Amino acid sequence: MGGSLTSLKPNYYLLLILLLPLTLTLTLTSAHKHELPCKHLTLYYHDILFNGTNQANATSTLISNSAPLGSFNFSNFVVFDDPVTSDRLLTSPPVARAQGFYFYDMKTDFNAWFAFTLVFNSGKYKGTINIMGADIIGQKARDLSVVGGTGDFFMARGITTLRTDAFQGWAYFRLRMDVKLYECY
Amino acid sequence: MGGSLTSLKPNYYLLLILLLPLTLTLTLTSAHKHELPCKHLTLYYHDILFNGTNQANATSTLISNSAPLGSFNFSNFVVFDDPVTSDRLLTSPPVARAQGFYFYDMKTDFNAWFAFTLVFNSGKYKGTINIMGADIIGQKARDLSVVGGTGDFFMARGITTLRTDAFQGWAYFRLRMDVKLYECY
Amino acid sequence: MGGSLTSLKPNYYLLLILLLPLTLTLTLTSAHKHELPCKHLTLYYHDILFNGTNQANATSTLISNSAPLGSFNFSNFVVFDDPVTSDRLLTSPPVARAQGFYFYDMKTDFNAWFAFTLVFNSGKYKGTINIMGADIIGQKARDLSVVGGTGDFFMARGITTLRTDAFQGWAYFRLRMDVKLYECY
Repeated sequence: MGGSLTSLKPNYYLLLILLLPLTLTLTLTSAHKHELPCKHLTLYYHDILFNGTNQANATSTLISNSAPLGSFNFSNFVVFDDPVTSDRLLTSPPVARAQGFYFYDMKTDFNAWFAFTLVFNSGKYKGTINIMGADIIGQKARDLSVVGGTGDFFMARGITTLRTDAFQGWAYFRLRMDVKLYECY
Repeated sequence: MGGSLTSLKPNYYLLLILLLPLTLTLTLTSAHKHELPCKHLTLYYHDILFNGTNQANATSTLISNSAPLGSFNFSNFVVFDDPVTSDRLLTSPPVARAQGFYFYDMKTDFNAWFAFTLVFNSGKYKGTINIMGADIIGQKARDLSVVGGTGDFFMARGITTLRTDAFQGWAYFRLRMDVKLYECY
Repeated sequence: MGGSLTSLKPNYYLLLILLLPLTLTLTLTSAHKHELPCKHLTLYYHDILFNGTNQANATSTLISNSAPLGSFNFSNFVVFDDPVTSDRLLTSPPVARAQGFYFYDMKTDFNAWFAFTLVFNSGKYKGTINIMGADIIGQKARDLSVVGGTGDFFMARGITTLRTDAFQGWAYFRLRMDVKLYECY
């Protein structure tokens, strides 16, 4: 019986040893791919394009408007400094600015490409989130990449899902942005 | 002899324990830096610049063409929605679109800078790969960064190697793109 | 006494086994978040904007200069191929080129947005570092994201801190860039 006990103990350690790599692999995986993001921000982006007269209200302006290919603004290029709010109201106090650019890039439909920085400089967060990717407007939800961050968002990576929340032609559009970080430091 | 057996067993466990960190370190390293990428796509990018008359075939267009510095198009800026195929043929069914921009940026030689999204929306893959970096045209092979991905390429990172595969001035050029992902989820 | 020795040995292994995950977790953490960067480069970026006559010396040029919103160049868009040196002197031999673009993007103050590649092709390093983010000029130090790298900077990620080191209006400005990598391969 003493002999069976000593043979049991090694088995117990053997089990531990065999399980260790599994445990550590799971820890590693969860550090990198979450079922749920480590941070999720829902924000609203408001864009008012300069039309020649609305200088006081405009938050963005075209730097190129020739668009010779098709009827969907292909190559129109817009630079923006847009307010970002935590609810749908343009008049709510901004929680961030979205600074960057978009351009239209399809002959046969409205389609855009964005690169911008969310600049947080008051209230809950200080820091930036850098985002780029295709805004395939024809899809209800489209995913861009969060490629980096600074300050409270140091080294962030993840996905930003855009949904058109309001659209009034050139005059105004609002995007719902779900910023989902899967790497948080 | 019984005694030598029991002293052998602990040594065996000791060996296991000593080897475990090595094994796990190797696992970790290979998760992050592969000698070989975790995914490798070879694609061909076809660009036909709008020349004022080829509206039907053109896949890209200049938004700035003043180029006052040097003779190598410095500051010419092109927006594109280019077909991407799995072989060299422009007429093959596209496996993706490349949507983004490039501009020339050198006074003394042809040199460009790209940022774009590979949009996969049919067939084998659904999702996007986001790429940016210098296209040092004078080098046979030049590496850009894969900075993010979505869908089937969720959170991807890696390198895209460009090689000029055909060049017919402004009329047409083709790039071979080797997209090598070293972080796959 | 023989019995106490055999009971000691398993405890020793148990301790090793219990400590192993801790050791490995620490190794993992330090591989991803350093208190100190795994690499730190201090560089100086020199920009001389084309003014219509300085074609020989200019390193950058406007592709859009309408700026209809406010008095702070909002939407002025500049493409550059700028020398990067390891000290403040414009005349020092460049250790890299900075190739990319910036644009101004605020109605009420000077504020810019950058995306560019540091191209190292001689001396100590060969490879590229890709950078993007907001340059909030009003802040003494502002952080952009290092979103990728190639060659000697394969898969790099981190932060680049910009500080205005000299400013002579459109004629010349110099930025101090502290490139801090927190993921090194």
